[in-house]
This record gives sequence, structure tokens and C-alpha cells, in this order.
Amino acid sequence: MKSYRKELWFNTHSRYEFVHITREVQEAVRESGIREGLCLVNAMHITASVFINDNESGLHRDYMEWLEKLAPFSEKGYHHNGGEDNGDAHLKRQIMGREVVIAVTDGKLDLGPWEAVFYGEFDGRRRKRVLVKIIGE
Amino acid sequence: MKSYRKELWFNTHSRYEFVHITREVQEAVRESGIREGLCLVNAMHITASVFINDNESGLHRDYMEWLEKLAPFSEKGYHHNGGEDNGDAHLKRQIMGREVVIAVTDGKLDLGPWEAVFYGEFDGRRRKRVLVKIIGE
Amino acid sequence: MKSYRKELWFNTHSRYEFVHITREVQEAVRESGIREGLCLVNAMHITASVFINDNESGLHRDYMEWLEKLAPFSEKGYHHNGGEDNGDAHLKRQIMGREVVIAVTDGKLDLGPWEAVFYGEFDGRRRKRVLVKIIGE
Repeated sequence: MKSYRKELWFNTHSRYEFVHITREVQEAVRESGIREGLCLVNAMHITASVFINDNESGLHRDYMEWLEKLAPFSEKGYHHNGGEDNGDAHLKRQIMGREVVIAVTDGKLDLGPWEAVFYGEFDGRRRKRVLVKIIGE
Repeated sequence: MKSYRKELWFNTHSRYEFVHITREVQEAVRESGIREGLCLVNAMHITASVFINDNESGLHRDYMEWLEKLAPFSEKGYHHNGGEDNGDAHLKRQIMGREVVIAVTDGKLDLGPWEAVFYGEFDGRRRKRVLVKIIGE
Repeated sequence: MKSYRKELWFNTHSRYEFVHITREVQEAVRESGIREGLCLVNAMHITASVFINDNESGLHRDYMEWLEKLAPFSEKGYHHNGGEDNGDAHLKRQIMGREVVIAVTDGKLDLGPWEAVFYGEFDGRRRKRVLVKIIGE
């Protein structure tokens, strides 16, 4: 069994942002030399997500508006740390998820035709990272 | 290390539907010959889910009504692709999840007594598929 | 390839409760002897979650209040089993998730600085369990 580990780093311009990372994850799979296995991609921060969906700007706007409705930003409205202003980010990340696990087949990410991997930032403008861990043969 | 890959195909009669697939996933584990490992089951489409919960029709009705409340169908209300009519499906799938990872122990899915695996369709009436990838020994 | 399986048991005092389990999961990794691999941690019950977020009581209060808003308790308001009183628990668990997959690197859980693992109970006061399955080398 082989294993491979890589960190991807981000520093988004805005507080809320989606970053397309399919290419970076695929590159990690290539570097690993693993042909058959599983690839875990997870946010290492608790106010960010990794998720799979369409690489389409209209949909991303839908997600952001929807998350804001389900878990609105509020400077003082959350109990988190006696009113830290990123309470909404912890909730939004829970909807979008912490991680994805992707099959590796024949040395490539085994994704459906429209599946694209995204980093979802809900409390950005500082350096944060994603972990890619691949195991297999 | 062994690995095994299988696709399950669906063509639901309705736009929204849950399909019980525990038996098909267990059958893939049997075919793989793997006794100890991990089994990934994921939707290959971005308007569908794979999730684990109770095989009980009342609960499935609860899920559908709840998802419709959280992410209502709207023919023109989403930005997705300038108003494609399946915007709600991308949101619903995010609540129910893309994938599950199930332990394989002694050649079987290592599930709790009431755990059952489902394909969740939110934009059906066409051919779509689920990926099963098992690694282990 | 090695594999290791362990069950963690819980019997919470209240119906709704979050239990910090990072130490127990790390202990299972140590027992496994696995240095590089993947660690699956999943609820074996369908009214409970395993999730990763901050070990902070204010945030946990935020989560509970938020989940109650999104999926309120109702003694008779759900179709589940003709009105079983834990319908809300099945919905809440769907938001918080069934499982997490954590990388194992150098014999340890490969977690970000604030990542902590929790068991999320939404229908407690009885014995329930979590499965830890680790594969790797």
C-alpha cells in the first residue's frame, strides 16, 4: 500500500468564496503514483468546506444566497466565543460539508461528468489550508 | 491491497425519489472478495445523493417535505445557468450529502441495525449512476 | 495492509448532547499500530451524528438552537412511523452528518489546529455506539 499527503493553501480576497480545486487534487493524485485507491480531501479549518458540485457561477450565487438565508451572518447574534463574529461560518460549513472522498481509478479522480471539487471559504482573508491524503496502490 | 469498482444505474419514474440500494452495495462487496476495508458509495451526478438512514416510508415523506421547505423547487427562482429549473436539486443534494463511506468487516458492510443505504434523486426521469469503490484485503 | 475496528459506546443523560471523542479516536489509532492510512468514524444509529468542529460551548449552543430552528422537535408533527416522536432527530443528524473520514499520518489523526471530533446525539438516554475503522500500514 502507498500513501501520499499534500496540503493546498488558500488566502481568499473575500470573506465568502468558492475556489475550484479539481486540477490541484488531480495533480496530487498524479504525484502520488497511486493507480487504484481512495482520495480524501478535507478542510483543515472549521469555518471552511470541501464539496463537489457544478463549476457554474449562477449556482455558486444560489449557494451563497441560500446559506445566508439558512445561517445568516450576525456580528453579535451567536453565542460562539461570547459573540465572535464568525458564528455563521461554522454553521454554513456544516451544510456544505468538511470533506469529500473520491475514488482513484486508473491513476485519475473517478468523477462524474459534471463533478468538480471546490474549497468553500466562509471566513476568509487569511491563510488557510486543505489536506489531500491518498491511499492505494 | 485489492480494489473493486462498480457502477449502479438508475432511471427513476419521478423527479424526486429515494431508492433503497443496501442489497446492491452488499453484492458489490461480495463480488470484490474484500474482507476488511472501506467502501465508498457516491452519486456521480450533482443533483443526487447517497445517504444512510431508516428504510421507512413515513420518514422518507418527512425528508421530502423538509427538503422542499429548506430548498423549494422554483422554475425561475434560481440563478443556476440563467434560470435552469433544477436549482433546488443542487441544494437538496447538499443537505442529504454526495457520498457515504462504509466499513467492510468480515466480508460484509459493517452497518448498525437500522442503517440502510439510499440513492436520493432530486432531478430524475433520466439515466444516472452511483459509483461503488471498495479497497482493502 | 492492516485494518482495525473498534466500537465506542454512549449513553447520554439528555436527549440532545454533543460528546467530545477526539481522544478516544486517537487512542484507537494508537491501538491499531497503523502509521499511514484513513480512519472512518461513523454513528451506527440513524438519529446521531459524528462531526468535526470547534470544542467550544458557545458554538455548541449555537448548533443546538440552529438545528431546533431548521428541524424542530414535534411529538406528532412527523410522518415517521405514524408519528414517532424522534422525527426531528433523523433530520438533525442529516445536517450534522453521519461520519467523518480522517487522514492518519505518522501514527496520528491528521487534524487541523482547531479540529475536534464529536458524537452528536439527537435521541439519547439509551445505549448507542460509534464505529471506528482504520485501514493503512
